[in-house]
Amino acid sequence: MRININRLLMDIERYSTYGKNEYGGVTRPSFSPADHEVRQLFIEELTEMGLQVAIDGAANIWGKYKGTGKKEGSIVIGSHLDSVPNGGKYDGPLGVLMAKEIVKNLIESNIRLDHDIEIVSFTAEESNDFNLSTFGSRSFVGRLTAEMVEGARDLKGARLNDELIKVNGGIDKFGMMKSMHSEKKAFIELHIEQGQRLENANISMAVINSVVGTYRSTVRVLGQSNHSGTTMMNDRKDALTAASEMILAVERYCSDKGNVVGTVGKLTVSPNAANIIPGQIDFILEVRAEKSETIQETVEAIQEVWREIATRRKVEIQQEVFLNQKPEVLDQDVVTCLVETAKEMNEPCLILPSMAVHDAAHMATITKSAMVFVKSIDGKSHCPEEYSHPDDVEKAGNLILHGIINLDHILSEY
Amino acid sequence: MRININRLLMDIERYSTYGKNEYGGVTRPSFSPADHEVRQLFIEELTEMGLQVAIDGAANIWGKYKGTGKKEGSIVIGSHLDSVPNGGKYDGPLGVLMAKEIVKNLIESNIRLDHDIEIVSFTAEESNDFNLSTFGSRSFVGRLTAEMVEGARDLKGARLNDELIKVNGGIDKFGMMKSMHSEKKAFIELHIEQGQRLENANISMAVINSVVGTYRSTVRVLGQSNHSGTTMMNDRKDALTAASEMILAVERYCSDKGNVVGTVGKLTVSPNAANIIPGQIDFILEVRAEKSETIQETVEAIQEVWREIATRRKVEIQQEVFLNQKPEVLDQDVVTCLVETAKEMNEPCLILPSMAVHDAAHMATITKSAMVFVKSIDGKSHCPEEYSHPDDVEKAGNLILHGIINLDHILSEY
Repeated sequence: MRININRLLMDIERYSTYGKNEYGGVTRPSFSPADHEVRQLFIEELTEMGLQVAIDGAANIWGKYKGTGKKEGSIVIGSHLDSVPNGGKYDGPLGVLMAKEIVKNLIESNIRLDHDIEIVSFTAEESNDFNLSTFGSRSFVGRLTAEMVEGARDLKGARLNDELIKVNGGIDKFGMMKSMHSEKKAFIELHIEQGQRLENANISMAVINSVVGTYRSTVRVLGQSNHSGTTMMNDRKDALTAASEMILAVERYCSDKGNVVGTVGKLTVSPNAANIIPGQIDFILEVRAEKSETIQETVEAIQEVWREIATRRKVEIQQEVFLNQKPEVLDQDVVTCLVETAKEMNEPCLILPSMAVHDAAHMATITKSAMVFVKSIDGKSHCPEEYSHPDDVEKAGNLILHGIINLDHILSEY
Repeated sequence: MRININRLLMDIERYSTYGKNEYGGVTRPSFSPADHEVRQLFIEELTEMGLQVAIDGAANIWGKYKGTGKKEGSIVIGSHLDSVPNGGKYDGPLGVLMAKEIVKNLIESNIRLDHDIEIVSFTAEESNDFNLSTFGSRSFVGRLTAEMVEGARDLKGARLNDELIKVNGGIDKFGMMKSMHSEKKAFIELHIEQGQRLENANISMAVINSVVGTYRSTVRVLGQSNHSGTTMMNDRKDALTAASEMILAVERYCSDKGNVVGTVGKLTVSPNAANIIPGQIDFILEVRAEKSETIQETVEAIQEVWREIATRRKVEIQQEVFLNQKPEVLDQDVVTCLVETAKEMNEPCLILPSMAVHDAAHMATITKSAMVFVKSIDGKSHCPEEYSHPDDVEKAGNLILHGIINLDHILSEY
């Protein structure tokens, strides 16, 4: 049994026309008109397939393909249908539409598994105007509560709850989500890699066994603003040259270690004038790694170098940690099942940590979860050029199709 | 004969109350209400001293103390009375009020020189809303023409010419300025150093023999925006780490050379988000040196290092020069006269280039010009903390007082 790659590719193209913009990208944030349309389309298609459709408080869409009933609960597969502004066709929809394709295969082959198979499309996975990314999965698992969602408004003052109600969710239905947890026996999310590890290794796919932790701190470098002409080089306390050394120290340490990424992506200069030596730099340091200890070691090592820079350059460094999200270990049983399935298929696959947070990281707190990554071309993501080769997509789809069949067998054995 | 330092200090305090702000600084840009008041005060005081007051097209204020008439024309001393927002008491007023103090000394001592002595206060020396710094001196010497001034407006749409007319200037009077050039036989400007060269040398004052050239270019570094989690360190084209290396290369080269300053004071990051590797950095490179060749060599040396960085990091660097102001050599005769005068006074003084542009740089194009710098404390300038010690101010004042007496003798000998 093999997924129908052409039908899947046509689905991806068809869904990408909702929110298609003038740059050839997809702009389909949750609650936008394009999102409303695509939700309606998706629900109609699930219904036509004969699935039992449910919409929870977070407006996550669930479509259940009933099993034989020999085993209780469902194996869930899916991802999200919302996109970043001017994003691509794959980030999100690939996982949802592949889930639909897999269930179609089961239906067409007249196969019912012992578990129910559920397709899910989570709401607002991407960064959004309510500052609540992975909103749907976080709400579903209880990491976001009705109380937390009640006050949420976007910059224009729109209430998140009003937007949820428009798509058949709403905080009144938040209570029911907890009662749904026990029936979800496993979750597998297919996603594009958004990086280049698979491309570098020339391998089509990876099974993801953990989601990295993320550390973020605001860093302020205080030097002394002064006239750029009259202040000789040796009399300066230039906050920007100090920050430059600090940024390069982050890069050097993380490049040497290999198992950690460190980034300064946001930086502002004060007073920011051509003829004034910068007196203050504010930036955000981000560190991600698979293990908490690695993050801790990295931050400490960087800070040690920074202290030396501050002393030598006579600048002051102030730091405040505002995010310290622990790594999430995914389910070893599901990972092993997927890796063994790949072996049966005679397809090479890597076992990798995910360097970004996905819905699966939150689902992992309530059920046995894992992910499959498919190779991205040039690592491009969140842009119209985002692409995965059909051959790779097909392999990953077949891995999940056969993976859930295997998982269905072994799941109650644990 | 010695200047009356206490009277001068009282004058500086008194003038600083015009435009005094809540931070203890002075906010007195040209054409502001505080500027209008201080102009009126200044004109009244010059008139009370018996000077012949004239206001030219650029609203520069001239006060003439007639000489014996044995020699034609005037020796001009002065600076400017406008300030930056939240500036100090010294930058500008020191030179103008010292000129007044010096002429008072001549009057009180019943001394008339062979030349007339003129006090000048130039309009809008500082950066201003019309984007025309050193406006008064540039207009006076003809570097800004009536045609260029006619269209000038600030961001709120106010016409510069209307502002000039309110203070008795205006482009109708621009023509007369050229006819005034021939009577100006010399110009000496006293200014605070705004740097730390004198403090480092522990010397009170310097005679300034040149004004540095200034080179500015916009620099764009193009890397590749990407996800900060999923893009491994080795797969990145981080425009910010590339720019950091470039900025440090500027600092290193200029520090090693010693006779040049290089600054990146303005820098912006795109897209500037914590979780996105910066794809584009835009900054301004500024290089200042006493000699054009030094600037040229510096820019070339920096660019060579930058090319290596761009190749190694696979980023693109785009550059556009938008300012290449040549260095201005000041008058050797006036410089020598001042240096000799210091020797007669038995006061040490340095001979230095000015690292900032002052009105004297423009006056040098029409008459024999030089400057005297007085030591700044901690190099602070354009801030409320701007300060020079009274002992140093007194020495510099006496240097100019005796300097113009000497210059009066020798001026027609050249």
